[in-house]
Amino acid sequence: MKRYAALAQTIADSIRRGDLAPGERIPTVRAACRAYRVSPSTVFRAYYQLESEGLIVARPRSGYFVANLDASRLRSTLDPLRKPAAAPHVAETALCRLLDSLKHGDVVPLGSAFANYSLFPMSSLWRYVQSATRNMDRVTMLSGLPPGEDGLRRQIALRYLTAGAALPMDEIIVTTGALDALMLSLQALTRPGEVVAIERPAFPAALQAVQRLHLKAVEIPVDPHTGLDLDALAEALDTHPVRACWFMTSLHNPTGATLSDERKRALIELLAAHRVPLIEDDVYGELQFGPAPVRPAKVYDDSGLVLHCGSFSKCLAPGFRIGWVAAGRYARQIRQANCMGTPSADVPAQLAISSYLGHGGYDRFLRKLRRNLAAHQAQMVAAVHAYFPQGTEVFAPGGGYFLWIELPKRVDALRLFGAALENGISIAPGPIFSATGGFRRYVRLNYGRPWTPAVENAMQTIGTLAARQRHPE
Amino acid sequence: MKRYAALAQTIADSIRRGDLAPGERIPTVRAACRAYRVSPSTVFRAYYQLESEGLIVARPRSGYFVANLDASRLRSTLDPLRKPAAAPHVAETALCRLLDSLKHGDVVPLGSAFANYSLFPMSSLWRYVQSATRNMDRVTMLSGLPPGEDGLRRQIALRYLTAGAALPMDEIIVTTGALDALMLSLQALTRPGEVVAIERPAFPAALQAVQRLHLKAVEIPVDPHTGLDLDALAEALDTHPVRACWFMTSLHNPTGATLSDERKRALIELLAAHRVPLIEDDVYGELQFGPAPVRPAKVYDDSGLVLHCGSFSKCLAPGFRIGWVAAGRYARQIRQANCMGTPSADVPAQLAISSYLGHGGYDRFLRKLRRNLAAHQAQMVAAVHAYFPQGTEVFAPGGGYFLWIELPKRVDALRLFGAALENGISIAPGPIFSATGGFRRYVRLNYGRPWTPAVENAMQTIGTLAARQRHPE
Repeated sequence: MKRYAALAQTIADSIRRGDLAPGERIPTVRAACRAYRVSPSTVFRAYYQLESEGLIVARPRSGYFVANLDASRLRSTLDPLRKPAAAPHVAETALCRLLDSLKHGDVVPLGSAFANYSLFPMSSLWRYVQSATRNMDRVTMLSGLPPGEDGLRRQIALRYLTAGAALPMDEIIVTTGALDALMLSLQALTRPGEVVAIERPAFPAALQAVQRLHLKAVEIPVDPHTGLDLDALAEALDTHPVRACWFMTSLHNPTGATLSDERKRALIELLAAHRVPLIEDDVYGELQFGPAPVRPAKVYDDSGLVLHCGSFSKCLAPGFRIGWVAAGRYARQIRQANCMGTPSADVPAQLAISSYLGHGGYDRFLRKLRRNLAAHQAQMVAAVHAYFPQGTEVFAPGGGYFLWIELPKRVDALRLFGAALENGISIAPGPIFSATGGFRRYVRLNYGRPWTPAVENAMQTIGTLAARQRHPE
Repeated sequence: MKRYAALAQTIADSIRRGDLAPGERIPTVRAACRAYRVSPSTVFRAYYQLESEGLIVARPRSGYFVANLDASRLRSTLDPLRKPAAAPHVAETALCRLLDSLKHGDVVPLGSAFANYSLFPMSSLWRYVQSATRNMDRVTMLSGLPPGEDGLRRQIALRYLTAGAALPMDEIIVTTGALDALMLSLQALTRPGEVVAIERPAFPAALQAVQRLHLKAVEIPVDPHTGLDLDALAEALDTHPVRACWFMTSLHNPTGATLSDERKRALIELLAAHRVPLIEDDVYGELQFGPAPVRPAKVYDDSGLVLHCGSFSKCLAPGFRIGWVAAGRYARQIRQANCMGTPSADVPAQLAISSYLGHGGYDRFLRKLRRNLAAHQAQMVAAVHAYFPQGTEVFAPGGGYFLWIELPKRVDALRLFGAALENGISIAPGPIFSATGGFRRYVRLNYGRPWTPAVENAMQTIGTLAARQRHPE
């Protein structure tokens, strides 16, 4: 190995191990010459290579720094079998193209994270918005300021009570969708450079949040059948200074996995023993098909370590962006951060949802929604069996509106994504769900929409494109 | 001086100088013993003192770290005359009490940052919301996804054109109020631990943003008459590695100062010479009373270094939280960050404002609003002269809805704040406008509301309370 390559390797290893944190300055060229007893040109060449690999960045007037793609570079020590990262920026580009495609009404949006508008009681919600806006005055506007409109918070507290958690209303803070709740929580619990445990795979906004807040991520594997790997989590807690966990315990995005009640209880006990807080991302829980509602891990939390984040965007009012966090022992802290920094959630939307819930009928609507989704799931599973090449494995979850699909060997999800887009269909390719690469043979498909001939055709097209990759002519 | 006190002093100085950055770990007790040749109990005592002064925090399982109150502890080197910080947490508490009081309709909100609802064309705006919601479908909802609804962005581009800046529509990104735009910009330009230049005084959310993003702040004085001190800025740019500036160049909150065109041009030249970007917070610019509209510094920017942040919340649609950033050369970066992380601004609100602007009449409304505000200003200035104790100095700005008032000696703004609240009146006490203390004799009063007997009485009460402090019985 040449000297510059050896030097590059040494530094790359430090970065991958996490010894050199994202944002940290790496030695100046002069210092590196002294330290490694090499010439400036060797150092320059090594740094140039690290830069081209995206591991470091040059900043004018400042020197060289470890790149900001923290999560994408930090290898989890828990998954030694993982292959090297498959060029995360390819996944990022795919994600941007995917989001962009969603704005085009003529693309069949099977890659979307949203369920279709037509499944929701939008006309009554907009009527409630309209009546809220007719009576809007200064005092009403101010009622929506953080921690949120009292009536809405009371309704949310009521739903917790029904689910088996008697939470004081004070613990509940209304936010601009769940993502705002999740970000507020993560920001309150961590500081730049610290370690958080996230899932592998995880939904893209979680990866983005970790990167934005300059955190390091330890990825805990999620099995599509059983959910989060608690043994891996226990090991991570023993070996890493984990500050907080961010997990989707029910109907995980993208795998659809739900932790059993028993495993949720075990998770809470494990975290309590380590005194590590859990940000419980529970935006799909209401979409569980079965007769018994799924319970969040929050109901087992005696020590106030769970910040339970919910939203009406997936189960009632897409686009209204009304979410909340029930922040346990961190409620005061979050209220304070929220009172100073973030603007309040949209007031008419808060009032409309509050009225809708107050008038009853939400549970009846949810039952209908779940029946619809279960029927669409059956149709999409059938379409996968009918159209996708042999060797495809499909994970049909007990709720929600995502299928997680493992494609046969030789089929590449990113290539399939590109080919499908050319055919006017979006899919969510596996690599967007991890910043450390992988999932090249996985896709997530959205069945949260009426089963139309266009969707049926789209499924057939995807199947054909996949088969073509598997057996190129 | 005792050994522990000397050690505490040494470390405190490093923190105040900025050598030890917020969040940085300070030496372990054992390391400090070795390094300073003192006993563990001396170190413990020193650390205990630093902790009680709020300069460091102990974190379980980790050790001691420089406290997160970055801005509040970093002394600007530019203002050597400044007194020691006046217990910033007192100001924070006051701010929370102030925000809390705004939710109570029975408090006369002279401390508010918002103008009164009745000054704005709310009923036509809500009508536009209602018509937008009547026609809302999936495609329309998706049209509001980042970078924002095209019609609205076109209207904003048109207003720039009128103001003398021909900006490509691509540069404009719609956000959830100006604060979202400001935070997005600041986050895109900086990384934790870096230095930004802000104003002194500055509005509380700016201070909070700096703290949230773990930045260090250099405070540049603002003169109520002439605005930002450009000499101080030049010195700061020479002596600190300033990554970005965040300034309100027109109708600054709280002083009301506006930089002249000439000084705006000089500001841009200075920043261009140092290649330092400017986040131009321009939410009050449209409220300039004079016949000629005030121009943002952005119009002088040839190098794309200005990220101009605007909003409709102060000049058209309070509570709608529709803002934007015209991000110059950083547009692509901000679009990308926004497409991945933040949810989009409220769609019906975007559509409503877009319709309102499209139908014309916005400029006519603005002229009326400015006339109203100018009349209210005259009334409030008269009330200050009539009721406030001798020695009060009032800065009446050329627009907006804030008076910045210097109280006579021996009158304390925080005490006055408490006394006023007890009398059902809120005022904004000076100390909330800087994280390093000061402004104990300043208050900001809001005249953005109809001049009612209740307001007149409130002014009389504040005057009486101030006089009582000045000449206690």
